Amino acid sequence: MRESYLFLSISFLYLPSLSSIQMMIVIMAAQATSKNKADVIAWAEDAGFDTHFSEGEETTIIGVIGDGRPVVKEQIGRMPGVERIVPILKPFKIASREFKQKNTHFNIGGHEIGGKGLVLMAGPCSVESRSQIIETAHAVKEAGAHILRGGAYKPRSSPYSFQGLGEEGLKYLAEAREETGLPIITEVMEPALVPLVCEYADILQIGARNMQNYALLHAVGKSQHPVLLKRGMSSLIEEWLMSAEYILSHGNTRVMLSERGIRTFETYTRNTFDINAIAVAKHLSHLPIIADPSHATGKWEYVAAAAKASIAAGADGLIIEVHPNPAEALSDGMQSLKPERFAKLVTDMRRVALAVDRDITK
Amino acid sequence: MRESYLFLSISFLYLPSLSSIQMMIVIMAAQATSKNKADVIAWAEDAGFDTHFSEGEETTIIGVIGDGRPVVKEQIGRMPGVERIVPILKPFKIASREFKQKNTHFNIGGHEIGGKGLVLMAGPCSVESRSQIIETAHAVKEAGAHILRGGAYKPRSSPYSFQGLGEEGLKYLAEAREETGLPIITEVMEPALVPLVCEYADILQIGARNMQNYALLHAVGKSQHPVLLKRGMSSLIEEWLMSAEYILSHGNTRVMLSERGIRTFETYTRNTFDINAIAVAKHLSHLPIIADPSHATGKWEYVAAAAKASIAAGADGLIIEVHPNPAEALSDGMQSLKPERFAKLVTDMRRVALAVDRDITK
Amino acid sequence: MRESYLFLSISFLYLPSLSSIQMMIVIMAAQATSKNKADVIAWAEDAGFDTHFSEGEETTIIGVIGDGRPVVKEQIGRMPGVERIVPILKPFKIASREFKQKNTHFNIGGHEIGGKGLVLMAGPCSVESRSQIIETAHAVKEAGAHILRGGAYKPRSSPYSFQGLGEEGLKYLAEAREETGLPIITEVMEPALVPLVCEYADILQIGARNMQNYALLHAVGKSQHPVLLKRGMSSLIEEWLMSAEYILSHGNTRVMLSERGIRTFETYTRNTFDINAIAVAKHLSHLPIIADPSHATGKWEYVAAAAKASIAAGADGLIIEVHPNPAEALSDGMQSLKPERFAKLVTDMRRVALAVDRDITK
Amino acid sequence: MRESYLFLSISFLYLPSLSSIQMMIVIMAAQATSKNKADVIAWAEDAGFDTHFSEGEETTIIGVIGDGRPVVKEQIGRMPGVERIVPILKPFKIASREFKQKNTHFNIGGHEIGGKGLVLMAGPCSVESRSQIIETAHAVKEAGAHILRGGAYKPRSSPYSFQGLGEEGLKYLAEAREETGLPIITEVMEPALVPLVCEYADILQIGARNMQNYALLHAVGKSQHPVLLKRGMSSLIEEWLMSAEYILSHGNTRVMLSERGIRTFETYTRNTFDINAIAVAKHLSHLPIIADPSHATGKWEYVAAAAKASIAAGADGLIIEVHPNPAEALSDGMQSLKPERFAKLVTDMRRVALAVDRDITK
Repeated sequence: MRESYLFLSISFLYLPSLSSIQMMIVIMAAQATSKNKADVIAWAEDAGFDTHFSEGEETTIIGVIGDGRPVVKEQIGRMPGVERIVPILKPFKIASREFKQKNTHFNIGGHEIGGKGLVLMAGPCSVESRSQIIETAHAVKEAGAHILRGGAYKPRSSPYSFQGLGEEGLKYLAEAREETGLPIITEVMEPALVPLVCEYADILQIGARNMQNYALLHAVGKSQHPVLLKRGMSSLIEEWLMSAEYILSHGNTRVMLSERGIRTFETYTRNTFDINAIAVAKHLSHLPIIADPSHATGKWEYVAAAAKASIAAGADGLIIEVHPNPAEALSDGMQSLKPERFAKLVTDMRRVALAVDRDITK
Repeated sequence: MRESYLFLSISFLYLPSLSSIQMMIVIMAAQATSKNKADVIAWAEDAGFDTHFSEGEETTIIGVIGDGRPVVKEQIGRMPGVERIVPILKPFKIASREFKQKNTHFNIGGHEIGGKGLVLMAGPCSVESRSQIIETAHAVKEAGAHILRGGAYKPRSSPYSFQGLGEEGLKYLAEAREETGLPIITEVMEPALVPLVCEYADILQIGARNMQNYALLHAVGKSQHPVLLKRGMSSLIEEWLMSAEYILSHGNTRVMLSERGIRTFETYTRNTFDINAIAVAKHLSHLPIIADPSHATGKWEYVAAAAKASIAAGADGLIIEVHPNPAEALSDGMQSLKPERFAKLVTDMRRVALAVDRDITK
Repeated sequence: MRESYLFLSISFLYLPSLSSIQMMIVIMAAQATSKNKADVIAWAEDAGFDTHFSEGEETTIIGVIGDGRPVVKEQIGRMPGVERIVPILKPFKIASREFKQKNTHFNIGGHEIGGKGLVLMAGPCSVESRSQIIETAHAVKEAGAHILRGGAYKPRSSPYSFQGLGEEGLKYLAEAREETGLPIITEVMEPALVPLVCEYADILQIGARNMQNYALLHAVGKSQHPVLLKRGMSSLIEEWLMSAEYILSHGNTRVMLSERGIRTFETYTRNTFDINAIAVAKHLSHLPIIADPSHATGKWEYVAAAAKASIAAGADGLIIEVHPNPAEALSDGMQSLKPERFAKLVTDMRRVALAVDRDITK
Repeated sequence: MRESYLFLSISFLYLPSLSSIQMMIVIMAAQATSKNKADVIAWAEDAGFDTHFSEGEETTIIGVIGDGRPVVKEQIGRMPGVERIVPILKPFKIASREFKQKNTHFNIGGHEIGGKGLVLMAGPCSVESRSQIIETAHAVKEAGAHILRGGAYKPRSSPYSFQGLGEEGLKYLAEAREETGLPIITEVMEPALVPLVCEYADILQIGARNMQNYALLHAVGKSQHPVLLKRGMSSLIEEWLMSAEYILSHGNTRVMLSERGIRTFETYTRNTFDINAIAVAKHLSHLPIIADPSHATGKWEYVAAAAKASIAAGADGLIIEVHPNPAEALSDGMQSLKPERFAKLVTDMRRVALAVDRDITK
């Protein structure tokens, strides 16, 4: 944690223009006095900002811009006569399209991520045994997957549920990679385990419940290892990009975003797949987007529809749960596909990919 | 309203098996007494149900099934010792796949709805003038639309916003149909206007805010006119199908469901497009599903991605806002496509439709 | 409907300053050209607005203010180079504290609503029989209620559920008033029934599902009858006040707002009681706020806690479901209190009322 | 992490009846075959469960109960012919009222938590300087607070925001305790820092974003230090109690739950205060509930209403942000009270507490 703070201050040094320019509109209440208005202006200028004053019959607004002291929004928001503050500049920088106009792309184990071809990550929710993961690895490879997924450390809402095999699971994943050549992605849940997981995994996954686990984001940022960042189940798209910013701020540029459904009032599906978020994230950011139709629906019957939809909407890849025998799975059995259904889906997805000028390489 | 009640009682008569079979599980609290359990059983049997009793060490459950008196769930739910009730049978009947296994399809102005070919409805949010709607009708027809949309009566959150041209707007729509041959769909907002709107429109639209306006549902049900039923912005899929049931209960079978986005915490888009709802509704019901990517995103930049995604997910058609000059639109300008963008989108959508073994007829 | 439009145009005439002044901030995209900016300014000035221009290094903003043509927000929002629009003035006028600083209060059947004393409305969800409503009326009066509630027309998600007794129910309510002296509140669900319901009821209730049934809002506005307006289950506080504005725009000033819980992801309770909305609505508006703890929780066990909380938060009254025999209720039995529990609750509520310098008159 | 797993397996040993009994209802699809039904029964019995079979005309249900192998729900859920599974037993054990009927109460620095008297925790969002925290400590003590709050490690959505003073902040907190005698509560954000924070703090706070950071829950559980567990902003009440279960499973019984508002569609307030959750959590669990009206509203103007409401609803204490100069606060200035307002609020809260037969000791 100490080192990460150090790094952070360095990032402040070499990114001054990114981290400090702020722009906001201060809307004064109808009953604000002249003194109230003058106080806001004085405060902002003392803090190092330029101000723009615009008085109307019913309302006065004050523009505040510059690279003054941070957290000015909350401070001005509390001043007498201020009704509300509207921030104008986006709070994320390195993650934004303004910072980097071209799509980010990089190579993992020979597979281009963020390019014209879509990347398919597949495998079981949890690594359950050596034979289960190796069998599945062969099956998903044959079906067309490029990367093997499998959880060794599992976030479970109950302390009494299966929590994963831990390092033993990582070893099985590595064996499966050796046998099939598939790079592996697996979740890391705490900062202290980042070095260990990096020894085995090609891609670190940050789960939805950890999207705002900042100590973990700093640790994976510092690791310089490729990262797939799931969106939190009730996180704004903007917050998701801010969490990516934590990782990027360490100079770790190989970050993928993953939409996996959000929590809404609807209960028929496990989550509501925010298909809009794919196009929005592509618009706001240069980072690749990976769709997770398994969590986004929670029921295997709907995975194919969601998978094809995400490709039509512009996803750069998918991460899909596949289990050789879902009815025996130790976790997420209800949303896992059997290998043969996955193979059929790959064929169907390729057709949709071609229809939107993308492809899924064999 | 009087007549509709009459009709309803008739529908009760000729649909006895549909309307009355109930099945639920009554879960008794850990501290429930033997008398509590006996009382539940006695009550349910008095009300005309069969019961199944199953006692465990920690919990007792009582199954209740049959065609006894209605509203039994709430009544049992209040009895001493009852912890909760789980209804087992779905509350909609005529709308369900169990009632009718094959997809519903029907013909409107020569266009098959619910068949292999997708139907495209396009046009402005509001009818603003004779020339605007006629110009748009020609443009969307040329681009490939099959049905013209346009609002004559507009639900607006502010009483000070443009409320639509009313009957004058309906007349312009009819003129546009005469000139182009496109059938028209338009919203009806109150029961008293159903006969008037039926005189002009080929399809009645029930807007999201009226999905549970039961007097209106009865009125459009009785009209025997084709209906497109938008999902309410915070309605469960089940409630949406229940609202369809209101219309169907009048013997009006030409009902389309339309997913138009739900309200969530995300604010970047106007709504969150519940893409899962398309596959779920197709699974639970035989009714055609029409996607509305314009409201589901609220921003024209994201309409194309959402439109293509909805086709990949299995939609039977789309309803899309198109305006010759969105920057001058009196409503929903931010989510309207220009005709040339719409024409391009039709081409792109056709490619996706073919990739999922559907088509968009020219 | 025709007349109501007429009335609306009259209200535009005598409230020009309220209905037409707009103020918004137009935020230009980083890549907006000088021409884009000039076009926005030209458009706004052509439309009759004053503009304020403020250019920064990264972003340019343009303030737009005045009483120009309506719907300008959506039109400017579509112009090239515009990133987003921030409206500054609130969209409701007559409902706002700015329009009327003092709390609205009025008298119904001898009971002051909106004053220091809280008003208690109580009774069954549905009127089920003559004896049921008369018995309940006596019981709630004795317990301390001031107004009798009871539904004659019931909005039900299923067409197969009990839909209310209709006019027969209204007659029983009137009899109960005659016997007890309690004024009555009952729901009206469609414009055509407003005159009939006005004949019997002292207060018209607009249910949550009809909060944006604009034809109905116009009809109750025109009736000049007191109205209680429930908040829609997924409606913003702002939209709720806009719906009140529809009623107020007809010169009908006796409007009460009622918070009854919103729909969220939480499923343990029927709704999530938005207790914040009470203080917020009191802050933004001068209208009285009535809490509905029965729907806000959906379980009688939690009604007392929610009722007391709403008083502590500043509610001006409560509407509570009471049924002599909840286990036999035809609707909402799970959230209804027995009369003796209600009587105990009145005593408990009075203590809380006194602790916040209010009272519940006996 | 290793040790915590060890502990967990021990807790499995001494709590066999708690951790393993499962009960669920399996609802078979209408089209399920006899073989499907037999397979479910065979599977469940092989896994060590008892089954109960109940066949209806339209639907068959199978009750499954016992202490068989875990994760049975997901496995059965995937079997052919199964429509859905309804779990009957609650997934939390030690946190439940069934496990412990009497309210949990314990003493911190002479203050009883969970007893008749309410506990007040107050102080700034962030520790900003030695003088700021000491000055605030004196002010809140004088106003009636019992415990001092202040963040040394701050979770911030932006990596560019003030992240807290770290250990320096802990030292200032300890100094403030020495000067005033107030015990201190402060947030811990990562497992590696738990020992350090335990050295300084009397109560560890788990923030909303970390409610499902399981490594952290294990670490604070093992620490045997008192814990305040905030509810996640989109967490079910059930999940919140499951997270408490993680801590309790280590034998750490001094756990407080804290409701701090949930994320909904409403944007006027920062969060929606789920006031129902207070009574529900008291009903389901024996743990004390602390309300956080500052985060639950996000605006200081509404803190008093929410604070009083939470007491009326049954909260056992409150945690409130107080800052000597909110307009200069480095975080959460908009929701912080000035000391004099807090002092007034304590007086007002005491009146409400007395009105519900509680008290706030001076």
